[in-house]
Amino acid sequence: MSKSSSSSLEAAAILSGDVLAASRLIRRIEDGDPSARPLIKEIYRGGGEARTIALTGPPGVGKSTLADRLIGEFRAAGKRVALLAVDPTSPFTGGAILGDRIRLGRHFTDPDVFIRSMATRGHLGGLARASGEAIQVLDAMGWDVILVETVGVGQAEVEVVHMAETVILALAPGEGDDIQAAKAGIMEIAHVFVVNKARREGAERSAKMIEEMLHQGPDRGPDAWRPPVLKTEALAGEGISGLIEAVSARWAYLESHPEAAEALARARARQVLTETLKTLAAERVIGGREGEPGFQKILADIAARREDPYTAAERLLDSAGG
Amino acid sequence: MSKSSSSSLEAAAILSGDVLAASRLIRRIEDGDPSARPLIKEIYRGGGEARTIALTGPPGVGKSTLADRLIGEFRAAGKRVALLAVDPTSPFTGGAILGDRIRLGRHFTDPDVFIRSMATRGHLGGLARASGEAIQVLDAMGWDVILVETVGVGQAEVEVVHMAETVILALAPGEGDDIQAAKAGIMEIAHVFVVNKARREGAERSAKMIEEMLHQGPDRGPDAWRPPVLKTEALAGEGISGLIEAVSARWAYLESHPEAAEALARARARQVLTETLKTLAAERVIGGREGEPGFQKILADIAARREDPYTAAERLLDSAGG
Repeated sequence: MSKSSSSSLEAAAILSGDVLAASRLIRRIEDGDPSARPLIKEIYRGGGEARTIALTGPPGVGKSTLADRLIGEFRAAGKRVALLAVDPTSPFTGGAILGDRIRLGRHFTDPDVFIRSMATRGHLGGLARASGEAIQVLDAMGWDVILVETVGVGQAEVEVVHMAETVILALAPGEGDDIQAAKAGIMEIAHVFVVNKARREGAERSAKMIEEMLHQGPDRGPDAWRPPVLKTEALAGEGISGLIEAVSARWAYLESHPEAAEALARARARQVLTETLKTLAAERVIGGREGEPGFQKILADIAARREDPYTAAERLLDSAGG
Repeated sequence: MSKSSSSSLEAAAILSGDVLAASRLIRRIEDGDPSARPLIKEIYRGGGEARTIALTGPPGVGKSTLADRLIGEFRAAGKRVALLAVDPTSPFTGGAILGDRIRLGRHFTDPDVFIRSMATRGHLGGLARASGEAIQVLDAMGWDVILVETVGVGQAEVEVVHMAETVILALAPGEGDDIQAAKAGIMEIAHVFVVNKARREGAERSAKMIEEMLHQGPDRGPDAWRPPVLKTEALAGEGISGLIEAVSARWAYLESHPEAAEALARARARQVLTETLKTLAAERVIGGREGEPGFQKILADIAARREDPYTAAERLLDSAGG
């Protein structure tokens, strides 16, 4: 069997929802294996139908319990759900995510729920790209809803979050103070704010604080999406129907505002394109040169401060360009 | 005054340790302002003397208190210290870092201590590059020790950590379970392990667990650095002298093993070069094309799944290469 027809068989399997074939491809994406690319290209056109939701927030606010509840609600509505848990912090919190998956056990036996953790296992870079590609795989498989839960909180995770059309930011009572102090960036990140653990003291105050912040933010015009601020107690199942309503409202908004939905889709495309381009450019210019004395000399010159990285990078790009 | 001579004046100011000039440049690096580059290039050769230490670990283990203690010890030894607090999570934990800086107040009045927070304020990507450049600025200023404290835990932060020649991984009692569950990557990240909050139950067990993990790791030969595992109670100042001894031992090791030190320096150079190259490649290919109909069509095609990102990125790179 030729390589391309075997690749097409794999693609067909993924497009028909084959969980094993998809898992194999996601593993190769995690590993940064370039041989996965023909397959990624092949399945790309098969996607675009899934609803993507990112669930993010600091550790300890109950994101996994919220995810569990959301999955339960979507299943009750007859939707098939994939959960991608993005955990770039595995060196630090690998145990936590393991526990999460155990907690999600009740969905593990449901064939209409697919749960996959995503880590990059010490490899440097490319988490946003790898997560984006994993979402493409899940999308091609035909899941109705793709829920992306970030475990780490950091730069790369913010980039991951931007790949979803709906972003839920979960906070715990008191976290509002932190937001207040930071502000920058938060307004654009979330489409739905959730103060979880709402039975705790300060939940009302935190919700109010977020409302005020949103109110003080720039006016985006009458047609802009207005992020609701909700309170939930996910462990007890309280407030979950409100959260589902907010997500449905977001979907209705995207459908009734095709220009806004398209602009968001283009922004996501821009990010995926940029990440892909960076990876390819680095591979073309640096890839496979590790053993070359000339390349080692460049590294030695930068290390010894005989040359700065910009000058070296410019020269490498110029000579690669021909 | 011509632009280049004004740039040289700025460079001279930074090389002489001018805090205001350095702060201005770091701000421009944070903002991703390309006009900062001539200055970065100019000061690059002035660096290379500072000792760089990264202090990392999950939230809540007491990194800031450890940093405060380390600064105190270095100052007592007559060393001038810069602290770069890398906080990519500002939308989430901005309050925390604000508190940290207040806690470090006692060093704020010391002219031989420079404290700077680094965030990227919602800008996507480039945190590792920006942090690397900020370290270059501090290095050029002539600080003896540059302490890099990461606040976020995630992919980008691991990359930041790799830019230091000595990496201290701080954990709290009990975190060892998580490490045990994850293993992957951790062995290479840290040169010194610290179990802080050592008065808490389980500290001894956590330390033992890390020791065992290190023991089970691959044998790196008789000349390899052997990471010590220490216990500290930073708030009470306990164990700090042991930590300083471990750092000194690491420095002595790097001096007595120039090949190992050089290999590490080249690995750091490789990372900085790769990050810089990715940034420049994306700028050359995508930068300034936002308004072009042709570029918007590419984004629309990717968004509508008419073309996959790899094919588009390859074509863009090919045509940019000429």
